[in-house]
Amino acid sequence: MKKHIVLLPGDGIGQEIIGSARAVLEEIAEKFGHTFTFETHAIGGTAVDEHGTPLPEETVTACKQADAVLLGAVGGPKWDDLPSHLRPEKGLLGIRKELGLFANLRPVKGFKKLLGSSPLKEELVEDSDLLIVRELTGGLYFGTPSERQENGQSVVDTLYYERHEIERIVDKAFQSARLRRNHLTSVDKANVLESSKLWREVVEEKKTDYPDVTVEHMLVDAAAMKLIQNPAQFDVIVTENMFGDILSDEASVLTGSLGMLPSASLRSDGVGLYEPVHGSAPDIAGQNIANPLAMILSTALMLRHSFGMDEEASCIEKAVEEVVDLGYHTKDLKITNGIETNTTN
Amino acid sequence: MKKHIVLLPGDGIGQEIIGSARAVLEEIAEKFGHTFTFETHAIGGTAVDEHGTPLPEETVTACKQADAVLLGAVGGPKWDDLPSHLRPEKGLLGIRKELGLFANLRPVKGFKKLLGSSPLKEELVEDSDLLIVRELTGGLYFGTPSERQENGQSVVDTLYYERHEIERIVDKAFQSARLRRNHLTSVDKANVLESSKLWREVVEEKKTDYPDVTVEHMLVDAAAMKLIQNPAQFDVIVTENMFGDILSDEASVLTGSLGMLPSASLRSDGVGLYEPVHGSAPDIAGQNIANPLAMILSTALMLRHSFGMDEEASCIEKAVEEVVDLGYHTKDLKITNGIETNTTN
Ligand SMILES: CC(C)[C@H](C(=O)O)[C@@H](O)C(=O)O
Ligand SMILES: CC(C)[C@H](C(=O)O)[C@@H](O)C(=O)O
Repeated sequence: MKKHIVLLPGDGIGQEIIGSARAVLEEIAEKFGHTFTFETHAIGGTAVDEHGTPLPEETVTACKQADAVLLGAVGGPKWDDLPSHLRPEKGLLGIRKELGLFANLRPVKGFKKLLGSSPLKEELVEDSDLLIVRELTGGLYFGTPSERQENGQSVVDTLYYERHEIERIVDKAFQSARLRRNHLTSVDKANVLESSKLWREVVEEKKTDYPDVTVEHMLVDAAAMKLIQNPAQFDVIVTENMFGDILSDEASVLTGSLGMLPSASLRSDGVGLYEPVHGSAPDIAGQNIANPLAMILSTALMLRHSFGMDEEASCIEKAVEEVVDLGYHTKDLKITNGIETNTTN
Repeated sequence: MKKHIVLLPGDGIGQEIIGSARAVLEEIAEKFGHTFTFETHAIGGTAVDEHGTPLPEETVTACKQADAVLLGAVGGPKWDDLPSHLRPEKGLLGIRKELGLFANLRPVKGFKKLLGSSPLKEELVEDSDLLIVRELTGGLYFGTPSERQENGQSVVDTLYYERHEIERIVDKAFQSARLRRNHLTSVDKANVLESSKLWREVVEEKKTDYPDVTVEHMLVDAAAMKLIQNPAQFDVIVTENMFGDILSDEASVLTGSLGMLPSASLRSDGVGLYEPVHGSAPDIAGQNIANPLAMILSTALMLRHSFGMDEEASCIEKAVEEVVDLGYHTKDLKITNGIETNTTN
């Protein structure tokens, strides 16, 4: 197969780890007889520095023509005081919206060797294997008005959803549950928010289409508790944008493998953007010590979700697991008797 | 001192534990020479059953005339399918709003004897002692519009804050930090939300009034991570209503003492409503096995914050600590070699 991939290194360690992803993909291409072509573009703070905007037109155009996009990370203190429209995060939010990537998939699964670095007791996390499906292009992140009012004396943000936006993410979540353990937890705040009531209604309607999937509704505050008390009770969690942001970051630290977690942001036709869950880690950027495994595992998700290359994806995932099992690791991971290495080893 | 207290037992175990609070207060009155008078009113599902509304007029009137209010808990599956305006939670939201209780204080501190039941590794939680100050009468919970639109095809909720609402809760948080370890973490989503930007601005303005308090800003997703990774790093956390709901519930399970956590909802003049953090636990209601300690500790907060009775409050807190240290506990707590008891022992 021939596939064209846009690389968006972004900021901080994004610049380093993107190279590891490319190297792995070149290996895969050779081994499986594919042709991957690459094109690199600017996003985030780096794009502000080079082009005066966190999301240059040519980046958008290139991404729209690509089969998939790999993103390193965006953000850093250097750009924290810029006005809103020049913040690196605006680049990320912009590209998600421009490409219509409404479904953010964040699998959280521990690595046996790394459970020791979990803040939770090992017996609580050893069996946890969950997937958060977060709505990514609606809700509080994009609703209008979002502005100061009354001469700066008040402020408003808007949580707005159209029914079809809820339907498509709920469908995606049901389909994801089918590929896993057939259980779906829909998280909302239906005892307070009108948007959550519609959300819950849509889930109730949709569940008749997926009779093989069991469904439960959970309030977001309860979910924030239960993720810690018993993460193994979850299979797939589906929720709106803001709740998903909070819960997926909460979930990401449970197994002690934050530096290992990939994510996929998809639209219905398979086009997707893939990025590590971790950030741009400006404090360790440029030292060649960043952990590239979340980035590499993001390429596996790309192969699987955008290119339908299941075998190739598993090949990468197995390789990562083996490397960790052998004890090779970057500084951020704690492995007893491990072998510390750097990014490009 | 003479003080008049309204008791709102509410639903489920609320009906049982409120009696323990009253018994403790009667002891305190005798020991310290105070006169406490009590009046009981309906709220929540029980009020729906008895008066056709989760917040009867006479409950509101009585609370407005009281020196403080003690609430058990509201909610239960029995009322889950009622229309919005008849949901038990509307009673709770209504009374908070009617009384203007804008500041919700939730202290989270472990009990040595109970750390074993924490999902986290003991060394992570043993030193944690934090206070979440949650804005309670604004934001997404109360903003309008909050409704279906376009023939039910879309839905909107509104996150609205007035500057003075942010100012008063931020002041409360700074003042709380002064009574503790002088550190304040303000949590927002300033990289996305306009309301968070105003929030951050207000914190920056206010901090010059409290030069003895160190201030840090943290994004809500990062806060959800750090609460688990290292809860001991926090002293006081201040945040808006919805973030506070999620983070305070997340924090409440860290130390393994959910059944022990009290909360205070205050306005500026000292009037307050006090309630346990836990819910109405309909599954164990009526069995006399509910843990009354969070309710009892809520009365201690009432004595301190509404009546200025610091010594009396400490007396209750010490007694609770002693009881737990002696190993007496209800079924929900796990204490090695403890002595299991029931609510009214
Ligand atoms: C950088 C930020 C805007 C972004 C978000 O909130 O969506 C990030 O936290 C994430 O979760 O990918
Ligand atoms: C019952 C519900 C409306 C309430 C809230 O969200 O405020 C509860 O979760 C709480 O935190 O006191």
